[in-house]
Amino acid sequence: MRLTILGCYAATPRTITNPTAQVLEIKNRLFLIDCGEGTQVQLRKNKIKFSKINHIFISHLHGDHFFGLIGTISTFALLGRTTDLHIYGPKGVKEIITLQLKLSNSWTTYDLFFHELESKESEVIFEDSKVIVKTIPLKHRVYTNGFLFQEKAGERKLNVDAVQQYDIHTAYYQKIKNGGDVTLDDGTVVANKELSFDPIPALSYAFCSDTVYNEDIIPIIQDVDILYHESTFLESEAALAQKTLHSTAIEAAKIALKANAKQLVLGHYSTRYDGIERFKQEAQTIFPNVLLGDDGVSFEFL
Amino acid sequence: MRLTILGCYAATPRTITNPTAQVLEIKNRLFLIDCGEGTQVQLRKNKIKFSKINHIFISHLHGDHFFGLIGTISTFALLGRTTDLHIYGPKGVKEIITLQLKLSNSWTTYDLFFHELESKESEVIFEDSKVIVKTIPLKHRVYTNGFLFQEKAGERKLNVDAVQQYDIHTAYYQKIKNGGDVTLDDGTVVANKELSFDPIPALSYAFCSDTVYNEDIIPIIQDVDILYHESTFLESEAALAQKTLHSTAIEAAKIALKANAKQLVLGHYSTRYDGIERFKQEAQTIFPNVLLGDDGVSFEFL
Repeated sequence: MRLTILGCYAATPRTITNPTAQVLEIKNRLFLIDCGEGTQVQLRKNKIKFSKINHIFISHLHGDHFFGLIGTISTFALLGRTTDLHIYGPKGVKEIITLQLKLSNSWTTYDLFFHELESKESEVIFEDSKVIVKTIPLKHRVYTNGFLFQEKAGERKLNVDAVQQYDIHTAYYQKIKNGGDVTLDDGTVVANKELSFDPIPALSYAFCSDTVYNEDIIPIIQDVDILYHESTFLESEAALAQKTLHSTAIEAAKIALKANAKQLVLGHYSTRYDGIERFKQEAQTIFPNVLLGDDGVSFEFL
Repeated sequence: MRLTILGCYAATPRTITNPTAQVLEIKNRLFLIDCGEGTQVQLRKNKIKFSKINHIFISHLHGDHFFGLIGTISTFALLGRTTDLHIYGPKGVKEIITLQLKLSNSWTTYDLFFHELESKESEVIFEDSKVIVKTIPLKHRVYTNGFLFQEKAGERKLNVDAVQQYDIHTAYYQKIKNGGDVTLDDGTVVANKELSFDPIPALSYAFCSDTVYNEDIIPIIQDVDILYHESTFLESEAALAQKTLHSTAIEAAKIALKANAKQLVLGHYSTRYDGIERFKQEAQTIFPNVLLGDDGVSFEFL
């Protein structure tokens, strides 16, 4: 699983920082999460192939999370894309995009599917054979969702040496991969753990931005491997975080701790600060495993 | 008069090129013309103060000319702007912007005035004491206007030595600046040209993008000082220019020649070419005074 941060700064794009957008590569699927202005250029800079993105998730309709969506959709069309594109986002996103396509008299060369979200409860919004995606209802100034991406547990790996040693017929292989024991011709039962290895662990990633500190999300993200949680402010601006329905680095760390996350990634930093190292220092007073998200940074998780 | 090209490439923004946006400084007024995605960052890169922009002109609603407008408007608000902002553009631009402001629950901190354009005839859309702006109806795939910016002729400059020599009372100064002669107490008439100098010549700038070759615009831009005319293609793609309602560099030069422009600035280059020098070479086979627009380039005209 690979997370590439295209942008992770709050509010306005600047010459040196970009608004929120990130690409999650999970089980060979590429998911684009949020799409601030300039995302298509950030995709180019980070050498991510447009054609591999089939699903875009939009957390909420503040500009720093979606003003780049119409440009991305249009560019895909200008490049002659034919593959379906799915957009998941708050109710209203379809009207915004289709109005602009209509007024520019520029329809897409591919089918565009909108999956508009309105529920205030967590729900499954995407599922295929290998990945499931659920919403994480967040508390912000407008209707906002985080997204929980979960790999499905894979099959057990066949222990080739062992099955050959026991001379087990290939007809049993799928049963073994599914976790079953095997009874030999002489009646001996060989336990599955002798015939197979554990599957590659299924990983999970939770994207939570933007939100005030909100413990209601903990049951949804419990035991998540990687938690990206917004940390717009340092503790000195805790009151401002509360007022604007954002979080501090320490609050992000508290959520990571209580949810038993393995790793916390910080982001959505206010541009008022000179650097971002302080965010890590403050978060680590609560929770040790902190990574600093930053534009153009890519993390691989195994 | 200073023209700063923020972006002058067609279609999609890339890591090295930007879609259309430019800033015209004329008589101490700053006009933003078109606003492709990333314009606010280009404004920052070119150190143009957001607070000095009070008027934005949008030629048409193709993405490479206006997808950066909503972000620019929002950033002005995030920075606490209080000065009025005027948007001139095709009918529909108000609906696009207000829908996005509504759905993001983020109203501007300043008054936003939309001047929606529908006329197919040239019309005056802005006028103050020093500048007048008229539309230039263009032929493109959607409703499109170019814009003609004209300085008003200034007052004549008082020849201070001469008026003192003739001992002319200050009460006559405004009459002299307006071009009037002065009759002295002894009945002698002193011609205005003895008492004043010519005013600084009034300059004019015509922005014509996007458009197919169209001689109908010539009467509107006749004798313009600076003509920016799109040249999406080289002559080898003349058929494609015709089909997509764009122009070639040679066609831009023909318009400059027939309109008796003093200077032609090229831009809106297709990104299919490796460099832009050929655009100038081809245009100069028709018209000598050609400047190549390019991102981040600034021209001063006197």
